[in-house]
Amino acid sequence: MTQATFYGIGVGPGDPELLTLKAARLIAQVDVVAYPSTTWKESTARSIAQAHIQSNQTEYPIPLPMRADRTETEAIYTQAAHDIDHYLTQGRHVAFLCLGDPMLYGSFVYLYRRLHHQHPISIVPGINSFSAASAVSKIPLATLEQSLSLVAGSIPDAALIDALNQHDTVIILKAGRHRHHIASLICKAGRTQEAAYIEHASKPEQQIHHNITQLPDGPGTYFSLFLVARQS
Amino acid sequence: MTQATFYGIGVGPGDPELLTLKAARLIAQVDVVAYPSTTWKESTARSIAQAHIQSNQTEYPIPLPMRADRTETEAIYTQAAHDIDHYLTQGRHVAFLCLGDPMLYGSFVYLYRRLHHQHPISIVPGINSFSAASAVSKIPLATLEQSLSLVAGSIPDAALIDALNQHDTVIILKAGRHRHHIASLICKAGRTQEAAYIEHASKPEQQIHHNITQLPDGPGTYFSLFLVARQS
Repeated sequence: MTQATFYGIGVGPGDPELLTLKAARLIAQVDVVAYPSTTWKESTARSIAQAHIQSNQTEYPIPLPMRADRTETEAIYTQAAHDIDHYLTQGRHVAFLCLGDPMLYGSFVYLYRRLHHQHPISIVPGINSFSAASAVSKIPLATLEQSLSLVAGSIPDAALIDALNQHDTVIILKAGRHRHHIASLICKAGRTQEAAYIEHASKPEQQIHHNITQLPDGPGTYFSLFLVARQS
Repeated sequence: MTQATFYGIGVGPGDPELLTLKAARLIAQVDVVAYPSTTWKESTARSIAQAHIQSNQTEYPIPLPMRADRTETEAIYTQAAHDIDHYLTQGRHVAFLCLGDPMLYGSFVYLYRRLHHQHPISIVPGINSFSAASAVSKIPLATLEQSLSLVAGSIPDAALIDALNQHDTVIILKAGRHRHHIASLICKAGRTQEAAYIEHASKPEQQIHHNITQLPDGPGTYFSLFLVARQS
């Protein structure tokens, strides 16, 4: 029997057409399709890939709470790795669907670390949310020798200000929850005119705000980011 | 007559299967397929997209020298924008193929800036070389609150050392020409064990060097990068 492979598959930012040909082919070919799900709603990764999932495939949703403490999350990954190991040992190929790219802030990494000593692994890169945000807002990310920094919206204020002072382009991910505070820091760094705030890039509910001083009240969604980019 | 659209299309890092479904569909649908070419060999972007180009489409290669001075390059972009404007004004949809992502160090940006006031523009994001490099080397780019910086291999030494000191992950693009010097700076920053050097990620000629102190002699290719990533 050939050894079964564990595939980490990026399904991109949201538009089902932003799947790669390779992702679409492999999703349709594997025996088991795994994906993160939440207790309160369907899996976003699954809904993006839906057209390629076959009725004879086994589906394995992994209930990953989005704001749990790490101990609980680690226990869920360990259980999921155990179950995936079981499928693979039976000779069944498994794909784990990841929003965006599996290797950039993707939950695939935690499963990879638990399984790569025992099983062949293959990773299919996906379109990142910031590439989609750049495409829909038409703000170029970088040209020539410009430098770019990618940070999480939850880093300390001083670190964010440093990034804004040092890099031509700063991408602030998972920014929605603190969007008003982050917008004020961008203004403080003198880069208001170069900034945009984007939610759900490439999805039907996509929103683009080119004036970050006039964001709607309250927190935004998890699927959100700021692009701050010097236009040379 | 409907207004014709100018499409900036990312064709990804090299593997023709890493095109998105959207890129494949649009390449097959437009009237004119444009791409950067060089005087000494075929266009890499075209060869990646080849399977989707139809025999009845007009092809428009744009001869972009890779190391010309900017004055010459700007003149070539101006001429290309003029020709693309002509196609669009005739009502013919034009796609410009870009390696990787059109908005990240992509030549599309220069055409976009010249044409977006006159014509509708649509941008299709592509898989970045560093996502492909991460996938094939199996080095995760970032998790949780790690920060990531993307720099060109030609920036001053001090700036590169700063990036290596300040960020969990540093991606050094277009690194081949100076790979031995860059490797020595990574060692100087104490991050040798966390680094890999990758050429042509996802292409048949792909090379992965996990030990950057033992790179082959001489310069490497333009399609190359270093990944330096702290594994938490």
